[in-house]
Amino acid sequence: MPTLRIALAQVNPTVGDLEGNARLIVEWTERAAEAGAGLVVFPEMMLTGYPVEDLALRASFVDASARMLRATAELLAVERLGGIAVVTGYLDRRAGLAPRVGLPAGAPLDAAAVLYGGEVQATSAKHHLPNYGVFDEYRYFVPGDQLPVFRMPADGGEVDVAVAICEDLWQDGGPVQVCAAAGAALLAVPNASPYERGKEHVRHELCARRAREAGAALAYANMVGGQDELVFDGGSLVVDAAGRLLARGPRFESGLVVADLDLPAADPARRPGQTPVDAGDGTTITVNRLALAPQEDPARWPSEPAARPPATGTGPEPLGDLAEVYSALVLGTADYVRKNGFGSVILALSGGIDSALTTTIATDAVGPGHVHVVLMPSRYSSGHSVTDAEDLVKRQGVHARTVPIRSMVDAFESELEGLGGLAAENLQARIRGMVLMSLSNQEGHLVLTTGNKSEIATGYSTLYGDSAGGFAPIKDVLKTLVWDLARWRNAQAFERGETPPIPENSISKPPSAELAPGQLDTDSLPDYQTLDALLDDYVEKDMGAARLIAAGHDPDLVQRVIRLVDKAEYKRRQYPPGPKITQKNFGRDRRLPITSRWREPVS
Amino acid sequence: MPTLRIALAQVNPTVGDLEGNARLIVEWTERAAEAGAGLVVFPEMMLTGYPVEDLALRASFVDASARMLRATAELLAVERLGGIAVVTGYLDRRAGLAPRVGLPAGAPLDAAAVLYGGEVQATSAKHHLPNYGVFDEYRYFVPGDQLPVFRMPADGGEVDVAVAICEDLWQDGGPVQVCAAAGAALLAVPNASPYERGKEHVRHELCARRAREAGAALAYANMVGGQDELVFDGGSLVVDAAGRLLARGPRFESGLVVADLDLPAADPARRPGQTPVDAGDGTTITVNRLALAPQEDPARWPSEPAARPPATGTGPEPLGDLAEVYSALVLGTADYVRKNGFGSVILALSGGIDSALTTTIATDAVGPGHVHVVLMPSRYSSGHSVTDAEDLVKRQGVHARTVPIRSMVDAFESELEGLGGLAAENLQARIRGMVLMSLSNQEGHLVLTTGNKSEIATGYSTLYGDSAGGFAPIKDVLKTLVWDLARWRNAQAFERGETPPIPENSISKPPSAELAPGQLDTDSLPDYQTLDALLDDYVEKDMGAARLIAAGHDPDLVQRVIRLVDKAEYKRRQYPPGPKITQKNFGRDRRLPITSRWREPVS
Repeated sequence: MPTLRIALAQVNPTVGDLEGNARLIVEWTERAAEAGAGLVVFPEMMLTGYPVEDLALRASFVDASARMLRATAELLAVERLGGIAVVTGYLDRRAGLAPRVGLPAGAPLDAAAVLYGGEVQATSAKHHLPNYGVFDEYRYFVPGDQLPVFRMPADGGEVDVAVAICEDLWQDGGPVQVCAAAGAALLAVPNASPYERGKEHVRHELCARRAREAGAALAYANMVGGQDELVFDGGSLVVDAAGRLLARGPRFESGLVVADLDLPAADPARRPGQTPVDAGDGTTITVNRLALAPQEDPARWPSEPAARPPATGTGPEPLGDLAEVYSALVLGTADYVRKNGFGSVILALSGGIDSALTTTIATDAVGPGHVHVVLMPSRYSSGHSVTDAEDLVKRQGVHARTVPIRSMVDAFESELEGLGGLAAENLQARIRGMVLMSLSNQEGHLVLTTGNKSEIATGYSTLYGDSAGGFAPIKDVLKTLVWDLARWRNAQAFERGETPPIPENSISKPPSAELAPGQLDTDSLPDYQTLDALLDDYVEKDMGAARLIAAGHDPDLVQRVIRLVDKAEYKRRQYPPGPKITQKNFGRDRRLPITSRWREPVS
Repeated sequence: MPTLRIALAQVNPTVGDLEGNARLIVEWTERAAEAGAGLVVFPEMMLTGYPVEDLALRASFVDASARMLRATAELLAVERLGGIAVVTGYLDRRAGLAPRVGLPAGAPLDAAAVLYGGEVQATSAKHHLPNYGVFDEYRYFVPGDQLPVFRMPADGGEVDVAVAICEDLWQDGGPVQVCAAAGAALLAVPNASPYERGKEHVRHELCARRAREAGAALAYANMVGGQDELVFDGGSLVVDAAGRLLARGPRFESGLVVADLDLPAADPARRPGQTPVDAGDGTTITVNRLALAPQEDPARWPSEPAARPPATGTGPEPLGDLAEVYSALVLGTADYVRKNGFGSVILALSGGIDSALTTTIATDAVGPGHVHVVLMPSRYSSGHSVTDAEDLVKRQGVHARTVPIRSMVDAFESELEGLGGLAAENLQARIRGMVLMSLSNQEGHLVLTTGNKSEIATGYSTLYGDSAGGFAPIKDVLKTLVWDLARWRNAQAFERGETPPIPENSISKPPSAELAPGQLDTDSLPDYQTLDALLDDYVEKDMGAARLIAAGHDPDLVQRVIRLVDKAEYKRRQYPPGPKITQKNFGRDRRLPITSRWREPVS
């Protein structure tokens, strides 16, 4: 049985940076070569980044991707990497196809290519196009109808490798079924699969099941990095044809996964050529069989198994839930800052838990020297607000300044006589937002917004006030999870012998917006345990009122909270993006009209 | 040849207001009955409003729609309207169907029903699901595979009527082709087709062509009204089987279109039952043939042709381009205000053309007594700013007040020392935004935002400053069109013998943001004729840089403007909604990543 050493390059491309992404392919192919791999698999849409949204509809962009793919193949050969087979995702189009209504001429494809010997040996495209949740791929792509199966040299013989893409694993029929019919020994799968809590376990199960269905080992290469709302968490993995885990990549960081696969030798009776196969989903997929000729250019990498470094193995234990969520928030924030060209961030530090956690995430994402906090006490700020904020500044070593808002509030109130109630509360929040925006304009920092998901859900925030900013790190984090993450981060520091970054008092004191004397969140909202359980069922699970009540939520509360959530839609539309960590975030995932008279019937 | 009098009820439902929308069906069926019609056709998704976005995925909402449909059928009978055939759109689901990945159990349908004799006689669903531009229907619906053909009484015999829905006309194959095979005499088509400039002509051509293909008269009933970004413009029409226009409804207002159709008598050999037919698009559609039995309940409406009021006819001449755009802006604004429960609007009046036009739209939409303007002069405001604004207030009779911003600017500048350049300019705009928001919170007005499409495209606006607000009436209007609309509206007033609402000086003076001494827009931007032509090609037509240059745009300008547009994506994400009037608005239509390093290659 031949042995193939494969590598999964779990890397972090940037949307639109075709040159930089191509450079990543060359760099990481070199690393794979140095590790003695004969095949390296990159993520989906590696050359363009993912998702590119409507850039997929722009001819100049699609053509640049296809050109860059050919250039990359040539560059690999120039770098004497032509003898390693590279599977990578990219964006292409299929000239001559009658376009679907709404698609431009030359229908775009979520494509993959096999690069070898300085050439693009084969291309294919994603067959199953996800169009739910955060995905809109039916808007952008035509489905692929090819399964490339390439024969390549391994130690002790030749093996057949097939290529499928991401969603092709998640739906029944299609490439997995055709892979089985084609008798490929390995299914290489580029992915751009965004993080959600608990998804890693699901992915592993899925890969194991599809490997058994395909009767082939399966190499799942996932993207890593943040892109607007999405965080790709890596966790690439390799399973054998029985679904057993052979190797696993790190989470939330780049990494090379290396595995040695004992694979059945290719059947010489199966010759290069094209064969249509029933895909079991009402479509036909053409198996495009080809052979990669051995390259004359002497490989620089270790050709003898004994000379190779060890394979990766199944890696560290899976991260716990809180570690995973926290890592997603840090990576999402770090990449938003970096990929948008910012060198620093600024945010309001109130002494409360939301801004404390957001500052901690920012510090972990970009380093304390790049974090600027502003203390903006008002007449309603309690003593502990200031001392807790100052305590955090000392613990983390971030840049801090104080801008009292009193005189600005007075100037507004004297021009706008009689402002009271909500208007007076919002005024303070908006002045703080303006101070941050002014400092951002003056000094070039990205403004971070500190609102949590419970607030954003219920509209317990001020438009252009505390909601002002460019990125909202804890936007998808319910309040109870904010506390859990703060405690977890402090405990983690404690374990490492470091100073816990968050003052205990910020965690333990009752939450308050401090926009009116003695104000507490519980004046306006139910306690957060109760609220978050209800929000989880209403927002995440999309349960109607009657079902919520049947599930045990208090009927009055159901009516009241649902109304708050529904009414706040206009605020959410103007909220900055933030990293998605749940099954349904506010943003790409949950799309509701602003104008709506729908009231959930309670019975 | 039998004659059928049909009515198209071009009405304005509200998303989520199932009861109110059902009431509209009963009311307008009564009007149709009074006009002597035997059949009345309502718009697509009439019962729920359109688009309902993710409400389509919520079981409680879908079930409420299906229940309300049955209740409506019964209510019609109670109101002695059971003898008129009603075709209406609604939301349903198809229990038992294996759902597509991402769709909830009981796959939703963009459905239509035939109501008659107090019962739901037949249902069907849209076959072609648009998933481009502003449409995301593949996210929500499964395609319909039924074509109802109902036989109904007409004067002098019986006729067969088929039902298709909106997009079914826009794509080849499917219901139109099956309608031809089924030999129906009339194709009744509920629509929710949003306004775009010039689309009416396209619709008319389309209906004529599809009527000829179907070999049937075609009754196109369109929705009217605003829903967030979309404006449905009505313009319902009836063509005969040769494609000749027989009747046409008004634009941008509710109306009943009545036409008498001479139709071939139904073939008695075609019996009730179900027949699968090749739809010519790779699918099969089942013709569901049924007969509506004459109702015993005596109709209250005129049964004798001679006693009926005259039919509608082909209506007034089509609106000119500017009249059409202006009407869309007024209707979109009026409906956003009304359907969201606001009684009044507030906006900043600078003396410039954007706020002048926005005020005029607001006045036309909700009446001058419900429009509040705020003059907020700063140290950089010119003398004519104030006099032009005051002139407009006098012309339109809106509520006006002046809030000088000097003292608030001073308060900020003394707390934040050294604010200069952009930060100082933005500060003024943000203080104005805050004043509006404070007054909105205090007095309950909806804040209107006055930015135009040229500004929003290039980022020539201040986040949380002039971009603050709930609705942006001229968001999709390029600056040159702003001037054209202002001149058109003044000329229209002049023709009617009214006072032109917009001061001539606001139209003729050079545009300025007045955030710095002597500032003019042309300091930062090219002249608007040049800019708008370029924006039209880049934004609307999605041309890449090389194509833009080849089309004659100045290469330096192409690079500079494209960069401005690309960089401003984050601002647009936080911009309020406004009525779509072009082929591609900022919002649902044009969806680009914020994080993107893509730079259009200029060669």
